[in-house]
Amino acid sequence: MNAAAPIAITLGDPAGIGPEITLGAWQALRHDPASCFFLLGDPEHLTRRMRALGQDVPIRQITHPHEALPGFADALPVMALENAVRAEPGSPDPADAPAVIESIERAVAFARSGEASCVATNPIAKHVLYEAGFRHPGHTEFLAALCAEDGANPPLSVMMLWSEGLAVVPVTVHVPLAAVPAQLTREQIVATGRIVAHDLRTRFRIDAPRLAFAGLNPHAGENGTMGREEIDVIAPAIAQLQGEGIDARGPYPGDTMFHARARAGFDAALCMYHDQALIPIKTIAFDDAVNVTLGLPFLRVSPDHGTAFDIAGKGVARPDSLIAALRLGARLAAGKA
Amino acid sequence: MNAAAPIAITLGDPAGIGPEITLGAWQALRHDPASCFFLLGDPEHLTRRMRALGQDVPIRQITHPHEALPGFADALPVMALENAVRAEPGSPDPADAPAVIESIERAVAFARSGEASCVATNPIAKHVLYEAGFRHPGHTEFLAALCAEDGANPPLSVMMLWSEGLAVVPVTVHVPLAAVPAQLTREQIVATGRIVAHDLRTRFRIDAPRLAFAGLNPHAGENGTMGREEIDVIAPAIAQLQGEGIDARGPYPGDTMFHARARAGFDAALCMYHDQALIPIKTIAFDDAVNVTLGLPFLRVSPDHGTAFDIAGKGVARPDSLIAALRLGARLAAGKA
Repeated sequence: MNAAAPIAITLGDPAGIGPEITLGAWQALRHDPASCFFLLGDPEHLTRRMRALGQDVPIRQITHPHEALPGFADALPVMALENAVRAEPGSPDPADAPAVIESIERAVAFARSGEASCVATNPIAKHVLYEAGFRHPGHTEFLAALCAEDGANPPLSVMMLWSEGLAVVPVTVHVPLAAVPAQLTREQIVATGRIVAHDLRTRFRIDAPRLAFAGLNPHAGENGTMGREEIDVIAPAIAQLQGEGIDARGPYPGDTMFHARARAGFDAALCMYHDQALIPIKTIAFDDAVNVTLGLPFLRVSPDHGTAFDIAGKGVARPDSLIAALRLGARLAAGKA
Repeated sequence: MNAAAPIAITLGDPAGIGPEITLGAWQALRHDPASCFFLLGDPEHLTRRMRALGQDVPIRQITHPHEALPGFADALPVMALENAVRAEPGSPDPADAPAVIESIERAVAFARSGEASCVATNPIAKHVLYEAGFRHPGHTEFLAALCAEDGANPPLSVMMLWSEGLAVVPVTVHVPLAAVPAQLTREQIVATGRIVAHDLRTRFRIDAPRLAFAGLNPHAGENGTMGREEIDVIAPAIAQLQGEGIDARGPYPGDTMFHARARAGFDAALCMYHDQALIPIKTIAFDDAVNVTLGLPFLRVSPDHGTAFDIAGKGVARPDSLIAALRLGARLAAGKA
């Protein structure tokens, strides 16, 4: 990783809000060379989208990442993909899948070679890619697969939602609530805790990261009277992590972990399921929470929202979360240098 | 209900923080006659606790609720129970159970006769009462049982957590997370929605209350791809409530319902389980959220915390939530007059 290297932003689904929030992010960050980035996209498509929005953002084509920084204040650097893009706002088109995938593959390659400091991904729509033959469960799994050595399993990736005041990690993510208790194993909690502790040390430069684990049940089970997962699964996982020298704490009742005094006491909250993690951070930091992927051999950030096809092309999409993602990516990359 | 009538505060577990937060609430509210209250307790026990705290709060014994208001600014009105109290802070004693129960029974009787405007309950410890033969599942169920007509079932009570900016209602409450999907029935959601809509109209004087329902699964199930409870249970319940003229909306993804712009769009959020409801409100209003019991023939408020035996008698308990409860009780009672 190279702090002087720019951030590579992927195309995302070109029918979503990705193009317009990328334009908005450049307008917000153009005078901040530390956050310098370039888009892996289709300059002509971007120009069409920009004009339809009534904007006039200067675009500069580049052929190598090191060309992004000189003149970043004057024009948005775009590296052209081999695949052209044709989608109209709000109307995703499976024919664009090759461009979407090429953009991700090239961004990852630049990050792994150090030519990009990190990857910022615009949102994709899985169902559009599936129609074009994409076979990965999701965006992050695809990134992990791109890092698998020949014949080996891809690395376990961990989703963290980060904001200035709170970082949360769901141990189980996109599973029905009824399936959570069965999926919640000691092994899964330990593996997640290890990755979070490791990446908070290495990427966030927190010497002794404090991990606070939530319980699964109301009041963290109240000594086993409202569910036993705390006693049978979560506490043993915490003990195992402590045995490895990790500052793991809990399990705590979910509802009393996230007020201002409580959240000052830990560096990341490890939650047992999607809403337990995402409700508190989106309640207090809806517009500027950042999705950070831990566990990969490169840094990946992304805005904490989807393609938003319903508002694409209307000029109302807020670039706040992408801007926060780029700022965090730049900060972490600089600290590594 | 009588707006000029005072609020009746119950003893709660006398070994908990109830006595000291009651003293603190009187000090905060003594010059606010609209929030006038009296304690159903043991004046000698209260005096002992007060002196141990190094405080000198004047206490005045009363024999009828109408004696509470005159002189409220000068002394805390206390109506003596027939049962004395002997517990020391932090050491709950089953021998105090008769006093704890008498206090609740008399407060409910005063509220039902209109001699008290509402009941504010200090926290109890169920396990202490169980040792003394108490047979109700909880505090609120006991209050409901006291309202059951001869031979009839008690009314269905609904717990609402209320703060200035957000009110939440868990449809299922103190059940293990793994048991939530099975307990979540259309009937339960409809019955809860009816009570919330009714009491928001009659007690909170909101003409057309807007009820926002959360989904159970991540992203509210994403059209059935991550769980079907939204399609099979929650949406039909919402449709049924709409058919009854209630402004019921959703199901919405839990994680995007609670940021400031979103919560301005509804009067109460009906959540499917404990932490989904309590995480957002305790994240933003930890010290001043109020527990309001809906569905009973009288108004009941309580602080949103437990007995806190671990800090009882140390002078560090915060009366904020009890004060907020008394202020809300007084506001609602006044509006009814």
